[in-house]
Amino acid sequence: MNYPQGTRRQTTANNRSNKSIVNFANRGMALESEINETNDYYLLTNKAIVHKKPTPIQVVNVHYPKRSAAKITEAYFQEKATTDYNGIYNGKHLDFEAKETKNKTTFPLNNIHRHQIDHMRSISAHGGICFMIIRFIAHNETYFILSDKIITYWDMMINGGKKSIPYETIKCEGHEIPFTYQAKVDYLSVIDQFYLSK
Amino acid sequence: MNYPQGTRRQTTANNRSNKSIVNFANRGMALESEINETNDYYLLTNKAIVHKKPTPIQVVNVHYPKRSAAKITEAYFQEKATTDYNGIYNGKHLDFEAKETKNKTTFPLNNIHRHQIDHMRSISAHGGICFMIIRFIAHNETYFILSDKIITYWDMMINGGKKSIPYETIKCEGHEIPFTYQAKVDYLSVIDQFYLSK
Repeated sequence: MNYPQGTRRQTTANNRSNKSIVNFANRGMALESEINETNDYYLLTNKAIVHKKPTPIQVVNVHYPKRSAAKITEAYFQEKATTDYNGIYNGKHLDFEAKETKNKTTFPLNNIHRHQIDHMRSISAHGGICFMIIRFIAHNETYFILSDKIITYWDMMINGGKKSIPYETIKCEGHEIPFTYQAKVDYLSVIDQFYLSK
Repeated sequence: MNYPQGTRRQTTANNRSNKSIVNFANRGMALESEINETNDYYLLTNKAIVHKKPTPIQVVNVHYPKRSAAKITEAYFQEKATTDYNGIYNGKHLDFEAKETKNKTTFPLNNIHRHQIDHMRSISAHGGICFMIIRFIAHNETYFILSDKIITYWDMMINGGKKSIPYETIKCEGHEIPFTYQAKVDYLSVIDQFYLSK
């Protein structure tokens, strides 16, 4: 289920405050929560401004009780037209999507929607830094890979090719994202090293 | 009430298809709808990629009926942490908020939240083009004004100054946004003319 950012992050915060041993705090945290924490850290240290977009929800009915907040009583999740995250770093527009897979040998392409591919294609064409963050849960490895490379495989799939990208390809064409305590998915370090002209 | 993008735009589309005289189609359209249409046009013509962020909603209860889509039965609107729109144009990160007022002589500052001001301050500092689109309904005029200028007045307000910006100031320090049939709030034309180096 795709809960909006607020709900997920609250849960994470509660989990954390209930744990006394810091080293165990990350276990079981979803990639999304770790990226949100990383973005909070980037924001706090004024390094970059990146936010997760709220989940689009179509509101059908709203109830307005006296003296309390409007309550939505009927609404539906909508499909996303874009990627989940965007923002600005070092004057550059950033745009990315994050996915995790339990698959050990390949990353399946079927959970990326066509309009997300179209969106990523456009962002790159307009000069943004567009990428995906892919976590292989079984390997406990998280990769940064430019969306252009994902799109190449997507286009091959559309033309009858494989429906997934091999793990080895992502390892080779992407960059493993380092983990630090404060920036759990430190994707800016990859951008610094490989995609910003010094 | 702050309805999410989907609902508003559907309504607009319905209104339009029910009207046979094109010239009257814009009457009564909210600024938000016109900006959404403008962004659709920019997207379609591959000029810029700008999207309205969905309204953040905290989902509390979801019902999963058999054979149909998940239905949200309890949810609440959340306060926005950022501005409503962002995207990329000509390699530049764009970020803006849109407001309309019925006031003839001033633009009241009380409907801009502090964290939106903080957000705009950061975006400018990081090299993004950050601005507000302000419509004076009574004058039927829509202005582009850099967020830095808004922030100056906001800071004065915090220090005991006026709680609004005079209409004449916005007219003088901003730029009136032209209306064209396809780009009803053609804010990129202002950026082209004043804020992009040739």
